[in-house]
Amino acid sequence: MKLLKDKIIAEAQIIDDRIIKVDNFLNHQIDVQLINEIGKEFKRRFASEEVTKILTVEASGIGIACITAQYFNAPVVFAKKHEASNVDGEVYQSQVYSYTKDKYFKIRVAKRFISSQDKVLIIDDFLANGNALGGLIEIVEAAGAKTVGVGIVIEKSFQQGRQNLTDKKIRIESLAIIDSLENGTIHFR
Amino acid sequence: MKLLKDKIIAEAQIIDDRIIKVDNFLNHQIDVQLINEIGKEFKRRFASEEVTKILTVEASGIGIACITAQYFNAPVVFAKKHEASNVDGEVYQSQVYSYTKDKYFKIRVAKRFISSQDKVLIIDDFLANGNALGGLIEIVEAAGAKTVGVGIVIEKSFQQGRQNLTDKKIRIESLAIIDSLENGTIHFR
Repeated sequence: MKLLKDKIIAEAQIIDDRIIKVDNFLNHQIDVQLINEIGKEFKRRFASEEVTKILTVEASGIGIACITAQYFNAPVVFAKKHEASNVDGEVYQSQVYSYTKDKYFKIRVAKRFISSQDKVLIIDDFLANGNALGGLIEIVEAAGAKTVGVGIVIEKSFQQGRQNLTDKKIRIESLAIIDSLENGTIHFR
Repeated sequence: MKLLKDKIIAEAQIIDDRIIKVDNFLNHQIDVQLINEIGKEFKRRFASEEVTKILTVEASGIGIACITAQYFNAPVVFAKKHEASNVDGEVYQSQVYSYTKDKYFKIRVAKRFISSQDKVLIIDDFLANGNALGGLIEIVEAAGAKTVGVGIVIEKSFQQGRQNLTDKKIRIESLAIIDSLENGTIHFR
């Protein structure tokens, strides 16, 4: 997606060979016009799929998921991340390891928000090692629902997230795929 | 806002005299069509204001802020809530006490995302004691910017949030004001 790649080139901060920060438009400040174009592009790519729910995880995924959901006419469910979150009643949960924070945390979704009839499109900002995404897919599986696809804004292909998920045979669409950040330069696929 | 009040009556869970849960459409699952109507209503109420930024706090505020931002053609900035959040460089921060979790946490916004020229509309899901909102207003003041208004989805008027903020002389628009939850019944203003 050219608009997104241009924005990444213009505004992303390359921290090191593995980390890129897009706080200017995706993770802290949100460029809602850009996210609208991203939502339309997800709709275009998954136009053939019936989607009854958009699933993401707090916090950065929520804005992207909500804007995208407008094009699918489906509600958003966001998994909650912290032990102390007020999720009442029965929950599906999954343990996720965060490389960024070097710790495990739980992600949880109240059971009543995903039924076995649901066709779920998972939306997230980044695909790196695929741990958070794997956790979301586990939750959909636990509900007996179907993940019809995964829409990612930025994939870092050198961190193996996609490979870690290939045995799931789920279609993953990433709008910008970064093959390398070496020498302070972004190499897109 | 009748549509919102009807939704609250139909789907909110009254936990006790002080707590109401709206996980069905606002805080865990998000009814994006409803949020779109909420966004339009915020635009109608603040139509006379120039808004250059929409400010909220993670996590529940983000979806509402992003949908609302479409009607103001302004970017969203969300304050980050946790010590470990990756906010780099200089930040504005504020200490906020959470009654729900009975602890203090910090909310932080990178300085580069609010300038002294900004006209900020603050959007949040709930106004109860007003602690989170007070923290956001402090951050706008620290940046030398102006809070042109506060848009709240649900205000619990019996928890004094509005009174705690009256000396700030900031216009607060709440789309549903709950005066009491006594005896398991919702009394709207």
